[in-house]
Amino acid sequence: MRPLSGIRVIDLTRVLAGPFAAMLLGDLGAEVIKIEQPGSGDDARGFGPFKDGVSGYFMSVNRGKRGMTLNLKHPKGKEILRQLVGQSDVLVENFRPGVMDRLGLGYEALAKVNPRLIYAATSGFGQTGPYAGKAAYDMIVQGMSGIMSITGEPDGEPVRVGTSIADLSAALFTVTGVLAALYSRERTGRGQMLDVAMLDSVVALLENAVVRCAMTGESPKPLGARHPAVTPFEMFKSKDGHVILALSNEAQWQKFIEATGARELAAPEFATNPLRTENHDKLKPLMDAIIARKTTAEWIAAMEQIGIACGPLNTVAELFSNPQIQARNMLVDVLHATAGRFTLAGCPIRLSDSVSSPPRPAPDLGQHTDEILGELLAFTATQIAALRREGVV
Amino acid sequence: MRPLSGIRVIDLTRVLAGPFAAMLLGDLGAEVIKIEQPGSGDDARGFGPFKDGVSGYFMSVNRGKRGMTLNLKHPKGKEILRQLVGQSDVLVENFRPGVMDRLGLGYEALAKVNPRLIYAATSGFGQTGPYAGKAAYDMIVQGMSGIMSITGEPDGEPVRVGTSIADLSAALFTVTGVLAALYSRERTGRGQMLDVAMLDSVVALLENAVVRCAMTGESPKPLGARHPAVTPFEMFKSKDGHVILALSNEAQWQKFIEATGARELAAPEFATNPLRTENHDKLKPLMDAIIARKTTAEWIAAMEQIGIACGPLNTVAELFSNPQIQARNMLVDVLHATAGRFTLAGCPIRLSDSVSSPPRPAPDLGQHTDEILGELLAFTATQIAALRREGVV
Repeated sequence: MRPLSGIRVIDLTRVLAGPFAAMLLGDLGAEVIKIEQPGSGDDARGFGPFKDGVSGYFMSVNRGKRGMTLNLKHPKGKEILRQLVGQSDVLVENFRPGVMDRLGLGYEALAKVNPRLIYAATSGFGQTGPYAGKAAYDMIVQGMSGIMSITGEPDGEPVRVGTSIADLSAALFTVTGVLAALYSRERTGRGQMLDVAMLDSVVALLENAVVRCAMTGESPKPLGARHPAVTPFEMFKSKDGHVILALSNEAQWQKFIEATGARELAAPEFATNPLRTENHDKLKPLMDAIIARKTTAEWIAAMEQIGIACGPLNTVAELFSNPQIQARNMLVDVLHATAGRFTLAGCPIRLSDSVSSPPRPAPDLGQHTDEILGELLAFTATQIAALRREGVV
Repeated sequence: MRPLSGIRVIDLTRVLAGPFAAMLLGDLGAEVIKIEQPGSGDDARGFGPFKDGVSGYFMSVNRGKRGMTLNLKHPKGKEILRQLVGQSDVLVENFRPGVMDRLGLGYEALAKVNPRLIYAATSGFGQTGPYAGKAAYDMIVQGMSGIMSITGEPDGEPVRVGTSIADLSAALFTVTGVLAALYSRERTGRGQMLDVAMLDSVVALLENAVVRCAMTGESPKPLGARHPAVTPFEMFKSKDGHVILALSNEAQWQKFIEATGARELAAPEFATNPLRTENHDKLKPLMDAIIARKTTAEWIAAMEQIGIACGPLNTVAELFSNPQIQARNMLVDVLHATAGRFTLAGCPIRLSDSVSSPPRPAPDLGQHTDEILGELLAFTATQIAALRREGVV
């Protein structure tokens, strides 16, 4: 049995942080009902690439959900939402702070309908503080949080982390908070409100940079592809590509010198890790010359023999043929009724009592409106048709 | 009341992924007992920077825990661990797969002692698959997972994400899995085993790159500091530093042209977002010239007036004076008995029913050994002294 089976989640989210959080709850067994504005829906439906008009972006973070439309500005839409909340455990939203309150659908209002509700609000800067009302996008938060300032070449411009880490880390902290609140509810009988900010979430991930900066007074700098304090622990160019070597102690350094026969590395200035880190500028060209002698595959094989961690620099395409990723079933297929197969990144949470089943595709806009209104709220087909004419669904 | 109060976690972890996961459980109210090898302890105690001999690295991911030493290779050490497991809810370990089984302390063995135990194993590549036994470090996983291949300058070398994202994302998925299992246990009465891999965790964060690559057959490439599909949505150089601008729709583009009076941007080749993205090479120098005219603060103020998202590129040091981060209390102080104050990144999970209290510092090696053995297992001072002489604690 999946851990959240029997839990119903109302998903009012758009684009990325909220949808990813709600999807993870679904991966863990919750029933997720994604509610979108009639006509337009989640903006992400308009983000490419597309297959037969279906957005890959949207599919990737909404798999497994059922979908319905509901106009939250219409009085009947608000009433239907309240009724759905009355039958649900969790609500996730990522509107700008204040939007739900202005709709009359904020936590205080919905907790009156269902005191057991766990109301999760994910936002750029949080529900409080001077920036609460500001527009936030992943890249704005990446810049503000400091993560860009430590990512990039040592003498180059700061770069964006290649995935939307501000959205995704906020999603993960949101799921964590929701699950903690669900557990808490088992003992208190009450729900509560969760407030997670993208900015806070990235700052939490910068824990090492924060403590380092607080202690030394200096901001960490980007270091390209090497470790700040362990050497050699970095990417090099091999004969045919790149290879990442991670030597974590002195015994491994001696083994590396023996295996490569590189006597120039035995110099006293490289004798200890602090010295190698301090003299990295001198060590780097020597290492470059050594690593350039063999292919990536040859280095991986050679280092495996002497127990030194070593790996390739994979492109995303190379993940599809990686034997470990295949063995772990980390790429999953969903089948859309008209657009066909989409291959997605799977859920990395492996629980021994959960049988994972192939997920359903993301819903088309309003695909399950009739089914959900009928099942949960006993609306008849005639009533639903009337709601549709009035623009409620 | 914090959501996990009353939950006891045995933390056998070292360095980063495991310690961060156990710390988060502690932030949520669990009692965390960190168990380390007598004499040596967690390797991270040796990672700088230091303050009066206390590691900032260690402090940052072990705050709030109690600590004891225990030799898991000694028969009496194994027996004490089993007794502690009998009184605990969760065990977290991040040894290489197989180590706990070889110690006779794997999930099967410990579940016999306590069938309600949730046993979380975090590792580089997971408990299964051809790479299960390989050594993994964050940078090896960053390279293998593909995240480095999409992070960096467009024509430069791939770079490491500036924080240890493979460790930290695995930690977050581990906490999620533990909480899901705790919730599940409320209904089934049973614990279970959780298996989270760093590689799987980063692949999950690459969801957009994965679906994009699967659909187009092409691996996404690093793009420096811009969005792959929205333009302009990137970092520029201002008169005195950097600024990040995020224009998400056509109305904002028109407002931007009006506000700046930059008629050159009104050309047909920049008329829509797809055209701007396609003609980014032509647009970039025009935007560079415009943005260079004002300071970062001037741009932020100007864009705020017309409702366009805009932000600075902060260094880590600048976080300490950021008004939003201050208002959210995202930097917290802990006070070590001899080394004094450490400033750490806080927990971004804000639950309305939880009162957050200032966390305790990380434990010194073995600091609470006597207290824990006395309290939980009723060992006397004489018995503990004997265990210490025998090298058990």
